[in-house]
Amino acid sequence: MKIQVVKNILDANDRIADANRSLFDEKKIFVMNLMSSPGAGKTSLVERTIRALRDRCRIGVIEGDIQNTLDADRIAVLGIPVVQINTGGSCHLDANMVREGLSGLNLDALDLLIVENVGNLVCPAEFRIGADANVMILSTPEGADKPSKYPLIFKISSVMIINKIDLLPHLDFERDKARRDALALNRDLNIFEVSCRTGEGLDGWFGWLEERVTQ
Amino acid sequence: MKIQVVKNILDANDRIADANRSLFDEKKIFVMNLMSSPGAGKTSLVERTIRALRDRCRIGVIEGDIQNTLDADRIAVLGIPVVQINTGGSCHLDANMVREGLSGLNLDALDLLIVENVGNLVCPAEFRIGADANVMILSTPEGADKPSKYPLIFKISSVMIINKIDLLPHLDFERDKARRDALALNRDLNIFEVSCRTGEGLDGWFGWLEERVTQ
Repeated sequence: MKIQVVKNILDANDRIADANRSLFDEKKIFVMNLMSSPGAGKTSLVERTIRALRDRCRIGVIEGDIQNTLDADRIAVLGIPVVQINTGGSCHLDANMVREGLSGLNLDALDLLIVENVGNLVCPAEFRIGADANVMILSTPEGADKPSKYPLIFKISSVMIINKIDLLPHLDFERDKARRDALALNRDLNIFEVSCRTGEGLDGWFGWLEERVTQ
Repeated sequence: MKIQVVKNILDANDRIADANRSLFDEKKIFVMNLMSSPGAGKTSLVERTIRALRDRCRIGVIEGDIQNTLDADRIAVLGIPVVQINTGGSCHLDANMVREGLSGLNLDALDLLIVENVGNLVCPAEFRIGADANVMILSTPEGADKPSKYPLIFKISSVMIINKIDLLPHLDFERDKARRDALALNRDLNIFEVSCRTGEGLDGWFGWLEERVTQ
């Protein structure tokens, strides 16, 4: 019975995600759904990505948070159109929240839409929003056991960004294990090792994204 | 309508949490519900706590994870009774899962039960399990904006452990802001700054816990 309720919710979400998908195709917008644990560096990656690609494509952002506008404020100062969704307690964005957020953006003036999900490795992976690509961040202080413990998000992502590599000398992070276990879950995963703090390694990620946006 | 469904689920959870609470009182067990983001150091804190207090009280552990027994395996090697709950996709433990987990422990042989929740700053805070104290970890790499972004978990916790202080020289973590914003949400919060890696600062936490277990 409980499973049935959950299934109905996910079915309803899928229908709206499909409608989002069609709209994004029609408007020729590449949409990425950015997910990670709290504090892994989602907003820092968005800031870096905007700075790198803003002269080459038109970017918009949807920020998902339980409450407040801290992240949207960080994006707004860059002069980029941004919509803040406050989920009011919900631990993830769903397709309908994104649908409503789209009304705050001029979709005809965008090539790339970055959706920053709520900080959580579990439920955001369960609710499709209709994005072209799921992108996840694993930060080195979280440890290399995360693919084993939270497999779904690794399975459904196109990209895993290993962030905070500047901290590697101070951690026991098993980099090879993290890569190997993530690839065992999803052999198509594109992996970039970066530091959003120093900028190291980000060019590979920028190249991956730009190639898809300007297709 | 949606709100009603959630409320019913939480009401049902509360009833089971109250029953757990009564059972813990009857058995004179101090129960702590340990919560944090993925990779903030929950299992490391449990290991350290067991090593420090195992000669002074009888400890049992319930490990909550989406899947696998990695964390329970880490506890079992210490010779401590441990039950692994696999939530099968659910992003939090609820009172009923804990209730079922209790059947795997001899409650008459325990003074302290540590329940390690699923790694998530959101939903574990919404589902009472009947513990005596909620204990949360904020790790320094996550950043000082977490009280503003995930307020509920700070409001309902008795203790905030700031972990990974050994990394402070390599981070921009605003320690005073984290403390101030957490205390603004909950002025009764007990704060301990520690490194589960080096052991620094843990004595204060051990003292706080032991005092309550042996009451």
